[in-house]
Amino acid sequence: MKKVIFDTDIGIDDAMALLFLHYSPAVDLRAIVTGFGNASVETTTRNALYIKECFGIGAPVYRGAGQPIGERLGEGYPDFVHGSNGLGDIEIAEPAGRAEALPGAQAIVQIARENPQEISIVAVGRLTNLALALELCPELPELIREVVVMGGAFGFNGHRGNVSPVAEANIAGDPLAADRVFTSGLRTTIVGLDVTQETIADSQFFDALKDNAGSAGDFIVRITRLYLDFHERVTGTRACPVHDSSAVAYLLNSCSYTTRSGIVRVVTGGIAIGQTILGDPAADFETTAWQGKPVCNICTAVKTDMVLDLYADTLALAGN
Amino acid sequence: MKKVIFDTDIGIDDAMALLFLHYSPAVDLRAIVTGFGNASVETTTRNALYIKECFGIGAPVYRGAGQPIGERLGEGYPDFVHGSNGLGDIEIAEPAGRAEALPGAQAIVQIARENPQEISIVAVGRLTNLALALELCPELPELIREVVVMGGAFGFNGHRGNVSPVAEANIAGDPLAADRVFTSGLRTTIVGLDVTQETIADSQFFDALKDNAGSAGDFIVRITRLYLDFHERVTGTRACPVHDSSAVAYLLNSCSYTTRSGIVRVVTGGIAIGQTILGDPAADFETTAWQGKPVCNICTAVKTDMVLDLYADTLALAGN
Repeated sequence: MKKVIFDTDIGIDDAMALLFLHYSPAVDLRAIVTGFGNASVETTTRNALYIKECFGIGAPVYRGAGQPIGERLGEGYPDFVHGSNGLGDIEIAEPAGRAEALPGAQAIVQIARENPQEISIVAVGRLTNLALALELCPELPELIREVVVMGGAFGFNGHRGNVSPVAEANIAGDPLAADRVFTSGLRTTIVGLDVTQETIADSQFFDALKDNAGSAGDFIVRITRLYLDFHERVTGTRACPVHDSSAVAYLLNSCSYTTRSGIVRVVTGGIAIGQTILGDPAADFETTAWQGKPVCNICTAVKTDMVLDLYADTLALAGN
Repeated sequence: MKKVIFDTDIGIDDAMALLFLHYSPAVDLRAIVTGFGNASVETTTRNALYIKECFGIGAPVYRGAGQPIGERLGEGYPDFVHGSNGLGDIEIAEPAGRAEALPGAQAIVQIARENPQEISIVAVGRLTNLALALELCPELPELIREVVVMGGAFGFNGHRGNVSPVAEANIAGDPLAADRVFTSGLRTTIVGLDVTQETIADSQFFDALKDNAGSAGDFIVRITRLYLDFHERVTGTRACPVHDSSAVAYLLNSCSYTTRSGIVRVVTGGIAIGQTILGDPAADFETTAWQGKPVCNICTAVKTDMVLDLYADTLALAGN
């Protein structure tokens, strides 16, 4: 069993990833840490508590960052993607429970200290909480087993940015935080648009979830209606990339992915703000920005069927 | 016959491109404008005058910019690529002639005004002279027939930067100038690393030049020795990309290239300084940097045999 902290700005695809973690027999979900991103941190925290109660998730919810630590690209929240409530504008009852008193970044540090080298962090929102946790606890890289980040785009398989020609939303939402995390020495794998935009969930995929995954499948079909509307407007096809659940899929079965390692820096200002750039430290370049930093692991290709099947098979456990 | 201004920081591959223009029956070379880049502007101007005298080139030489208009990446000159004299450290006699009194940028404007819509500019160095010419003459885009730039890298065919993970040398040498040129409305085609690094000249190519291109072939073989040494150290193969001559090849036979159009912006500061970024103005991005600007034409693929054969066939005219 992997002990997991889920750092998330729930969010439609975040909700799908949370249920993926919840129903996976290989996961011991220890905490849900929220953050701003797909909606405000108030909204994402409410959503986490709502889903926790709907599906009997035991892990406590910690409220995380409400704003970036550095300059970000854009402003406001993408309600045209996730709805104004972050969950596709379905009706949501106010949850009875509340978030823990401990702030998200402090919770990450505390749980890491209590479980040295045992915690996997799946971070699918802005990397603000992790950057703040690194500030609180510079030895965090030695305490954490691994970090799997959904974010970024490196141009593999032709995929570049989704909020600018070169920037992906999670990274563009707090570029400085991402740059600090990627150069921190945390054992990090980056699951970017390079692979998430290759992994497409179509109507057939969602129909099968509705048939096989009980109330979880029903919930996913309801929240993804607006999400699919958005992607259909952009691409002409009623299907969507599997963003956040791809980070969970990597955690559960990294064999589905081809990876390479390298030093990753994030552009923190100017027109390329939020771009993730992979550098070769051995190259004889006229810049030292990619020298002497710890490396990350970057997903460059994916066996999409393995990812989609793992998701469907895991959620089918909810229907039994 | 195309009336051509050659804007160049001679340079080994610049010298090859100059001879390509000189011996092409389709080119009426009207001016050589020099600039800093592969070496200082003093050195590149001297080199232009030297080659002009060696090969009886009629076009006058105008000395252009000695420094960038904005922040650049790196410092100094790449003597490890082009030699400290810019021509592979072969022995060079001091030329008898001198550059014209008119500065390079002013020469571009004057020649354009005298030949409205007839001048093609082949720009294979920093774009400083062109940016200065645009400042002197904002209506330059209506006066110039076309501009072919060797520079930049867009990630097509897997090619990114050669002086940073994302920046190509000519653009990184004066990013602000390049950004101004690419957004000026000049009818511009960008021949970047995407295609020049696909077009490889090997020992066989140079042997054939030596056999067929008379004193020009002999000169090219002499100056490229150090250039090939450099590329052999980097790649392990005694061969080099055909950078600057690819811009001439596009001018003479654009059918050798596949192109697409788009808005190109250049990063002018930060770790991505010098990166050329192609944007889709129709995309719903959280940035306006790629909106409402004139487009450029970008080379995305190349029929390398056509380019190499055109070069060899043209230079063979020197041997007759």
